[in-house]
Amino acid sequence: MIITPDRFGGGTDGHMKLYDGGRAPNPRRVRIFLAEKGLSVPIVPVDIGNLEHKGPAYTQINPYQLVPALELDDGSVIGESVAICRYFEELHPEPPLFGTGAKGKAEVEMWNRRVEFSLYQSVQAVFRHLHPAMAEMQVPQIPAWGDANKARVIEMLESFDVVLGQRPFLSESGFSIADISAGITVDFMKPARLLVPEALTNVHRWHAALRARPSWQA
Amino acid sequence: MIITPDRFGGGTDGHMKLYDGGRAPNPRRVRIFLAEKGLSVPIVPVDIGNLEHKGPAYTQINPYQLVPALELDDGSVIGESVAICRYFEELHPEPPLFGTGAKGKAEVEMWNRRVEFSLYQSVQAVFRHLHPAMAEMQVPQIPAWGDANKARVIEMLESFDVVLGQRPFLSESGFSIADISAGITVDFMKPARLLVPEALTNVHRWHAALRARPSWQA
Repeated sequence: MIITPDRFGGGTDGHMKLYDGGRAPNPRRVRIFLAEKGLSVPIVPVDIGNLEHKGPAYTQINPYQLVPALELDDGSVIGESVAICRYFEELHPEPPLFGTGAKGKAEVEMWNRRVEFSLYQSVQAVFRHLHPAMAEMQVPQIPAWGDANKARVIEMLESFDVVLGQRPFLSESGFSIADISAGITVDFMKPARLLVPEALTNVHRWHAALRARPSWQA
Repeated sequence: MIITPDRFGGGTDGHMKLYDGGRAPNPRRVRIFLAEKGLSVPIVPVDIGNLEHKGPAYTQINPYQLVPALELDDGSVIGESVAICRYFEELHPEPPLFGTGAKGKAEVEMWNRRVEFSLYQSVQAVFRHLHPAMAEMQVPQIPAWGDANKARVIEMLESFDVVLGQRPFLSESGFSIADISAGITVDFMKPARLLVPEALTNVHRWHAALRARPSWQA
């Protein structure tokens, strides 16, 4: 697809829309979240395989060139997948996916951050710095940094396995955004050429339960 | 200080306490947040210079060995600085530091994440992978990865300079946790041996305004 500055219409049409990025982890996270809420938002595909998110049209929508992004009815744009999810959580609190009450909300945030800052970032580093297909996107590609992150991925999964031996989901609050974040990260391990060790039976059981949820196809 | 398993008492005494880490960025973030809220929480110092956060006593409190951590009256522990801040935001909503309303909350979260995932993580990578004092803590230390992050720090600050030319703080909601996160990150640039370019006058003005707030001494 040819990228042109007016590819996305060049201005709001007064209707909410989600600029999506297909199979990449963060776009999936938002679509799964919406499916869990039973919500449907008009989707505008952004072709990240062809670097459309780096082009001038999308840069006008999100100057940080990341997908997904949510355009509101008033034309303002919310970037960052968890910020988009929180927007919908506030408007549609049921079922709660960010926890309830001060302690529950803090606990979900804690788990979501552990997933994002340690597990997700490590898988991402392995993918970006070791996968041959990322050589053009990730400049400089530093294989030593990719390698260093492999141990961190396993270490985090081992710690999650202990938790998931005690309860069905990461947070005591039950199924939450932390599980969505962690589940899409485990899925992301496949293109990153990483495997969940067989010994981590609780992680495997939890991941199978996520994959069995209808939302996981979103 | 000698680290012993009972250094922290080995169990709850029924009172909230904040396990603190001194001048490190994340402990500071929580103390500044509490000061902005006008709240005071009993503090238990954790000596990260002597790696006390990696010792058996603190590992029992936070298995991820990170500071700060908040122990609640019931003995449960909230880790992750932003999760701790959100706990207090829920209990003490005024002044709001995570935004108000669905759009305001999403917007603050968006800016806080842009700060954390791009600016903070890049400064941290420069510090951990290039500073000689970090050679023992950061294994392996990969100077090429530290160097690669220097450009990202400047790129993010340049983007913030544009925003801060249009309004006093990062979020349209006014002063928020995103400014606290960004401010402690700019402070963290000093030990990381990075400078805010002189040309970024809006960043300099904003940072001076943060430093002038009484909370910044917390």
